[in-house]
Amino acid sequence: MKKPKITIIGGGTGSFTALLGLKKYPVSLSAIVTMMDDGGSSGILRDELGVLPPGDIRQCIIALAKSTRLLRELFNYRYANGVLKGHTFGNIFLSTLEKQTGSMKKSIKIVGDILNIKGDVIPVTYAKSTLCVKLDDGKIIKGEHHIDVSDNIKERNKIQKAFLLPKPESNEDALSAIKSSNYILIGPGDLYTSVIPNLLVPGIASALRKSKAKIIYVLNIMTKFGQTTKYTAKDHLKDLEKYLGKGVIDIVLINKEKPSSNALAWYKKFKEVSVLDDINDDNGYKVYKARLIKDLLINGNKKEDALRRSIIRHDPHKLAKKVLSIIGEN
Amino acid sequence: MKKPKITIIGGGTGSFTALLGLKKYPVSLSAIVTMMDDGGSSGILRDELGVLPPGDIRQCIIALAKSTRLLRELFNYRYANGVLKGHTFGNIFLSTLEKQTGSMKKSIKIVGDILNIKGDVIPVTYAKSTLCVKLDDGKIIKGEHHIDVSDNIKERNKIQKAFLLPKPESNEDALSAIKSSNYILIGPGDLYTSVIPNLLVPGIASALRKSKAKIIYVLNIMTKFGQTTKYTAKDHLKDLEKYLGKGVIDIVLINKEKPSSNALAWYKKFKEVSVLDDINDDNGYKVYKARLIKDLLINGNKKEDALRRSIIRHDPHKLAKKVLSIIGEN
Repeated sequence: MKKPKITIIGGGTGSFTALLGLKKYPVSLSAIVTMMDDGGSSGILRDELGVLPPGDIRQCIIALAKSTRLLRELFNYRYANGVLKGHTFGNIFLSTLEKQTGSMKKSIKIVGDILNIKGDVIPVTYAKSTLCVKLDDGKIIKGEHHIDVSDNIKERNKIQKAFLLPKPESNEDALSAIKSSNYILIGPGDLYTSVIPNLLVPGIASALRKSKAKIIYVLNIMTKFGQTTKYTAKDHLKDLEKYLGKGVIDIVLINKEKPSSNALAWYKKFKEVSVLDDINDDNGYKVYKARLIKDLLINGNKKEDALRRSIIRHDPHKLAKKVLSIIGEN
Repeated sequence: MKKPKITIIGGGTGSFTALLGLKKYPVSLSAIVTMMDDGGSSGILRDELGVLPPGDIRQCIIALAKSTRLLRELFNYRYANGVLKGHTFGNIFLSTLEKQTGSMKKSIKIVGDILNIKGDVIPVTYAKSTLCVKLDDGKIIKGEHHIDVSDNIKERNKIQKAFLLPKPESNEDALSAIKSSNYILIGPGDLYTSVIPNLLVPGIASALRKSKAKIIYVLNIMTKFGQTTKYTAKDHLKDLEKYLGKGVIDIVLINKEKPSSNALAWYKKFKEVSVLDDINDDNGYKVYKARLIKDLLINGNKKEDALRRSIIRHDPHKLAKKVLSIIGEN
């Protein structure tokens, strides 16, 4: 039997998690990755070297790497001092190759070969474009890192609409991957900064509508302040369908495991809660519910930022196992 | 027949040239490399990350690489903008690996594997040490990059003595390479900043004295202002023998090709001239004279610094061919 071809659409930690889990199975993997990151290390490299943001690409490459642990750790190595402070080595590597070869595509190919990756990492576009959102008070926020305000707990109005400036051309390889896939995972990932940016690239949403692949939306476990504040599962789907159209999502996978009260208390500080499950099969898609949380302890780690990045996640193995079982049934 | 084992002692461009030429022949190659660089990209990484200077190591690795041209070029890629300005990617890579693995030795092994190198690149020491010289007016200059004053054309007194502070321990691998070699090339390379720093590391000179290898000194083509101003061939050997002892050098290879008048005019601006050949077999070593210059045109290149680095060099292929013919005779 031919290996099922699975494409994951997203970026960042969510795609990393899904790819890390799925690569252990006999499946053919592609990751379509947002290119709208403009903060942190990626943002600096984008500004200073004029390259595409490498951060999301890096995470997907590491997830798919079959190389030694050392090389994988090297790619995630983050400098603590000097002018390189805050950059990861993988970002520097990808950006240097892009400058050197003049092509992000070649850059990914070379790094992928060195790290011996299983699958394809595909930027949704090779064009430079800025993610913008309009809030329901009319305010417009430009730039992914201004939208992503994880550590800023001020109130913010609901996002009414997201758009890209200028409109970038989609990457042909992304369209082909969507066309030829048997299954497409949308998410997990922050709705407005990892998932939707991909769907805003002209051609992507329509390719998804035309694709014969089963489209599975993996809902986030927690809400994200400033993006999906107080959102229930239905709210997530409603926003997603604005860009994707109705009836495109075939399957929704939602977590049913309760996070630890410790973790919930932490998230509460940031006004973030578990996504309320208010969906069922009557909503036009098949709903699967599973225990998907990675058990992470919060104890004594004083690096709040690292902690912030690391608690309440999808467990790569639970997620992959469930996705494979869904594939078996569908 | 077993491949002859050749070890090259030096650093920088000289070692690069010799290794690049010799790697095409059926020989077993090692490069013992100075670790005293403290200027430019290496100096910054040394200060900011607390690593060993990677620059000379990088050049030797590239010379020995059998990987694609692209990867080799990547390792030499020098950033023109941003916080990385002036750094090469290879330096960043080596230093990151050193931070990540805690060991320059492992770092060289990994980069060597990725670039598929033929031979061994061996830091003369893994300890941090500063190169110092005492001039004959008593003045002491500390730091390799203060000694190497290629673009500073002020007068400077003759170097009386070079030393390291603190005295570093030698790398065991360097001692073994010296012991097990059939031939050892000292140079080409700047006498006080590439060659002698190796000999100042305790144990290296005495290993050379004890080694059964034929020791070949490859004389530089041009004098170096501030280090070997107005030096003849004999002056070079005299200084070298201060650290090595008399009767240790078996063979001297000196260039007999006249550089172009254009090139000579350029060097004259920096008070540098062809090394005068005043040696012969009567001086206690066998002298070989050969046409060894790489023909480089000087035309219209406005990047004076690049030019400065690139004219009047040993030709890797002429040098290697001559070294192999010497080996055939000795």
